[in-house]
Amino acid sequence: MSALRKGIATVSLSGLLPEKLATIAAAGFDGVEIFDNDLIASPLHPSEVAARCADLGLTVDLFQPVRDVEGVPPEGFRRVLHRLERKFEIAQQLGAPVVLACSNVSPDAVDGPALRAAQLHRIGELAQEHGLVVAYEALAWGRHVNRVWQSWTAVQDADHLAVTLAVDTFHLLARGDDAAALDGIPGDRIGFLQVADAPMLDMNVLEWSRHFRCFPGQGTLDVAGVVAATLAAGYAGPVSLEVFSDVVRQAPPTVTARDAMRSLLFLEDQLTGALPAVAAQEAAFVELAAPPDDPQVKGTLEALGFRLAGVHRTKPVTWWRNGGASLVLNGQETGHGRPQALGLVAPSVAAVQTRAAALDWPQLQRTRGADESALPGITAPSGVHVFVSAPAGAPDDWRSDFRADTSLGDSGWLGLDHVGITVPPDRLDEETAFYRILLGLRPGSLQEFIQPHGRLQSRTLRPASGGLRIVLNVSQGDGASAGARGITQLAFGCADAAREVGRLRAAGVALMPVPDNYYDDLDAAFDLDPQFLGLLRDHRLLYDADARGGELLHAYTMPCEDGFFVEILERRGGYDGYGARNTHVRLAAQAAA
Amino acid sequence: MSALRKGIATVSLSGLLPEKLATIAAAGFDGVEIFDNDLIASPLHPSEVAARCADLGLTVDLFQPVRDVEGVPPEGFRRVLHRLERKFEIAQQLGAPVVLACSNVSPDAVDGPALRAAQLHRIGELAQEHGLVVAYEALAWGRHVNRVWQSWTAVQDADHLAVTLAVDTFHLLARGDDAAALDGIPGDRIGFLQVADAPMLDMNVLEWSRHFRCFPGQGTLDVAGVVAATLAAGYAGPVSLEVFSDVVRQAPPTVTARDAMRSLLFLEDQLTGALPAVAAQEAAFVELAAPPDDPQVKGTLEALGFRLAGVHRTKPVTWWRNGGASLVLNGQETGHGRPQALGLVAPSVAAVQTRAAALDWPQLQRTRGADESALPGITAPSGVHVFVSAPAGAPDDWRSDFRADTSLGDSGWLGLDHVGITVPPDRLDEETAFYRILLGLRPGSLQEFIQPHGRLQSRTLRPASGGLRIVLNVSQGDGASAGARGITQLAFGCADAAREVGRLRAAGVALMPVPDNYYDDLDAAFDLDPQFLGLLRDHRLLYDADARGGELLHAYTMPCEDGFFVEILERRGGYDGYGARNTHVRLAAQAAA
Repeated sequence: MSALRKGIATVSLSGLLPEKLATIAAAGFDGVEIFDNDLIASPLHPSEVAARCADLGLTVDLFQPVRDVEGVPPEGFRRVLHRLERKFEIAQQLGAPVVLACSNVSPDAVDGPALRAAQLHRIGELAQEHGLVVAYEALAWGRHVNRVWQSWTAVQDADHLAVTLAVDTFHLLARGDDAAALDGIPGDRIGFLQVADAPMLDMNVLEWSRHFRCFPGQGTLDVAGVVAATLAAGYAGPVSLEVFSDVVRQAPPTVTARDAMRSLLFLEDQLTGALPAVAAQEAAFVELAAPPDDPQVKGTLEALGFRLAGVHRTKPVTWWRNGGASLVLNGQETGHGRPQALGLVAPSVAAVQTRAAALDWPQLQRTRGADESALPGITAPSGVHVFVSAPAGAPDDWRSDFRADTSLGDSGWLGLDHVGITVPPDRLDEETAFYRILLGLRPGSLQEFIQPHGRLQSRTLRPASGGLRIVLNVSQGDGASAGARGITQLAFGCADAAREVGRLRAAGVALMPVPDNYYDDLDAAFDLDPQFLGLLRDHRLLYDADARGGELLHAYTMPCEDGFFVEILERRGGYDGYGARNTHVRLAAQAAA
Repeated sequence: MSALRKGIATVSLSGLLPEKLATIAAAGFDGVEIFDNDLIASPLHPSEVAARCADLGLTVDLFQPVRDVEGVPPEGFRRVLHRLERKFEIAQQLGAPVVLACSNVSPDAVDGPALRAAQLHRIGELAQEHGLVVAYEALAWGRHVNRVWQSWTAVQDADHLAVTLAVDTFHLLARGDDAAALDGIPGDRIGFLQVADAPMLDMNVLEWSRHFRCFPGQGTLDVAGVVAATLAAGYAGPVSLEVFSDVVRQAPPTVTARDAMRSLLFLEDQLTGALPAVAAQEAAFVELAAPPDDPQVKGTLEALGFRLAGVHRTKPVTWWRNGGASLVLNGQETGHGRPQALGLVAPSVAAVQTRAAALDWPQLQRTRGADESALPGITAPSGVHVFVSAPAGAPDDWRSDFRADTSLGDSGWLGLDHVGITVPPDRLDEETAFYRILLGLRPGSLQEFIQPHGRLQSRTLRPASGGLRIVLNVSQGDGASAGARGITQLAFGCADAAREVGRLRAAGVALMPVPDNYYDDLDAAFDLDPQFLGLLRDHRLLYDADARGGELLHAYTMPCEDGFFVEILERRGGYDGYGARNTHVRLAAQAAA
């Protein structure tokens, strides 16, 4: 397969038309769809827009949309032709070879195949006179034509070469169809292909489309399947993004354009496997920005049970370990002991670098000494640096850069269970795409929690295999840690939560208080053995159980001023969640802190 | 009818439990529903909560909710009884006489009337042992019980005095039922009444409930009808607000509590007509904060065609008039010539004062000279002051405070067509309630527009009769006028828009540019007479037409730095809209300014 011709509709970006075109070109797109309202509101004449695009190296692939053009009561069709003639002239001036026509949404639309065919045929004649092709699209909320098979039937009935089918992944998939709906449609009858993804939401499809579309890889629709089917049919035109959402409308166009280009590169990779596959598997370490000899940070780490495990061979960097959990103190960074980077095991390291370069994710420039492991660093949209290590023992294992203290035993915590990263509401899609597209993690659905002063949304990301768990959090409202950003939570797994919280308390670590009422609720909800309930109550442990007998025991430290906190958790019997039933208790305690 | 017993659920407010209780008491509520999660997360023992409420003068009306208690597979019912016994003990400690039980939402719920009846009967026995009553509620998304007739059938079948019906206006109305669904249900079998309103939205009812509930008077559900039917049946318990939404979760609890209390006073007034009716009819004037002799402001007014029409008898206030449009310059206020107050004709003035006092809308304290008209001023949530005048010629007509220049003719503009007021997203419900509850205006549905850097939502408010039009705007995103607040638009009606924009240009008023492309689109869309299109193009007028032949011709001034602008419009043939098709052109021009 040759490289996709990559396009995007101007409606997908915020801003004014000249800025949009420049931003689209700078992001590396081949072509553009001109959205009529962008043109109407612009002082640029269509021929000036055409010249501007040519200067920028962009083809004008489509002019869109014309609406309510077929199924029109016959007495009104002359007005439609007048309207189309004017718009076709503008398409000519723009140099757009294709005009998108949406299926009629008017309550007055007439549902007659013969009338529709005759009107589309006449429209085809008019388009042909202007040297144009019309691509007819079944809007998911069209009055009579809202499924792709209906629009394809209409195109066949129209029986005119200038009337072609428009395929839009959102409209097709939103109505529950899939790639099979395109079976038997010849590619040369498909006039245009628009792509958009979306999260699964049970709501009016028009509102869903207006507010929640996103770029391929950010949602859950099988965009790649529909695109693959369209290409397999022989369609050779551009693959063009048409995405609008509450997020995109407010995001800077440069951010959106980069995000959009990455999504098409991801789509291309899904279709061709051109990029090397990556599957992040495990958390390796968390890096804190602190001088290795900072007494306060050292004191905190020691209280948590971490011990100095190694010293970097060439840099002012130390490695601290509590059993299987590793922290790294980096004295080259400033950040008051806050976590700022995450080390992951993700074979292969070279593949991650190749993907990051191809997908335009910025790589950190760091000096690398002779014999040091590669450990490339890539910055996520949240600002968190992600370092990629080979597995233990392999070349490029991050540990090989340290002179390890071999006397340190392996007892202690099991490892880093999950990492909580907080992002602003309008960056969640982009952060999700980072872990999904670059590192091969799979996003879960969005969970929502009430906070005392707002709401919290969470989405987990996990690999197909491996223990890595990343939790993305969005906090809305003006709560205590409303401004928290980046890594805000480190959750460590242990084999005996009661023993660990006892040890932490003895070491002077301030743990989050849990109200007595909580234990009365546990008693009500789970009918626990009184002795076990007493253990939980005595240790102020939170508890959850799943339907299969799995159990979670966990506790939190009090948050720092900037909202950062540590969790200790014990999973029993295959418990696979995060204690969602207890989140409101944590949020209330944090708000009270 | 005696006064309603007014209650509210703690889940309706943001914050932590002690703060919620204090805020609820301060707003004047009689009682409170304790939401279980608020209690679980609180260090206060239930008996301490009871004492706190007693100290605050609040009755604890309800403890809520217990979930998934009926239709439970028999082998699991023992666990349910254990859970209920614990929760009933807590209700006793709280002093709550009623516990709310929601219909089962579990996919495993069993759909058998006999099992449901037997389990509810057993629950009734347990409740009675604790001196409690259970109120059983049909959640709109219950697995088998989701309509009020189903829950009433279950209550009858349970055949136990301690099992009663819970009526929730949201759940009842959201499923398309209305007050008639309560026909024949005796009031003494209704154990609790919860009230919430909502805007009409076509979406999953659970998401609708979670994110978009609002207080009565802020939405479009017939809350008053259901409450009236419940009271008519003989229900004598509290009327209790249970409202959660994305707005309420983030709003300060004091704001929410005041809003909530106003909504119950409004509801009470709808039921009893206890407060005097008010119907604002016309715009009287707009007040600008500026010294009467400010040369810049005077220059602008003169360029717009306003002339000095009168001088206040006692204050440094002048009246400027352009035909039927009046502006007032108030030198006692500071605000750089910005509009800050709106005068309305709303009979009777005394009635508005009575309503404002009863509904806790703050009245401005202003000195009133002997023989001056009453002209009470009330501050809307947006900060806009609304002054209320009697009609022309009546006592308390605002004009009677001025020594008028009787030589000034009546030619000029027709009047103030509409006023645009911009509010933050989280204050739209409250601002809507101000005009609806206090002044009797009727809200329209929410319209949405794309802005170059975000989105704009608009809602109109109009009286049942009279020409007053208020447009509330919410701007999201960081566009040019993102921080604009208060009165941001004054739209004046005229008889000949082309003549007026010609006159304004000649007077040096900077009007908003309209691109040539816009006129090509007008030609395409409306197939206008070429001469008329030429007139529109020459005068750079915007245009719209409705299906009945009504037409709008309009133009805008360039916005000030803070986003304020003036519109001149000509309505022809009964055109009743606001030119929504042109809003994107205005927003683009304003973004480019």
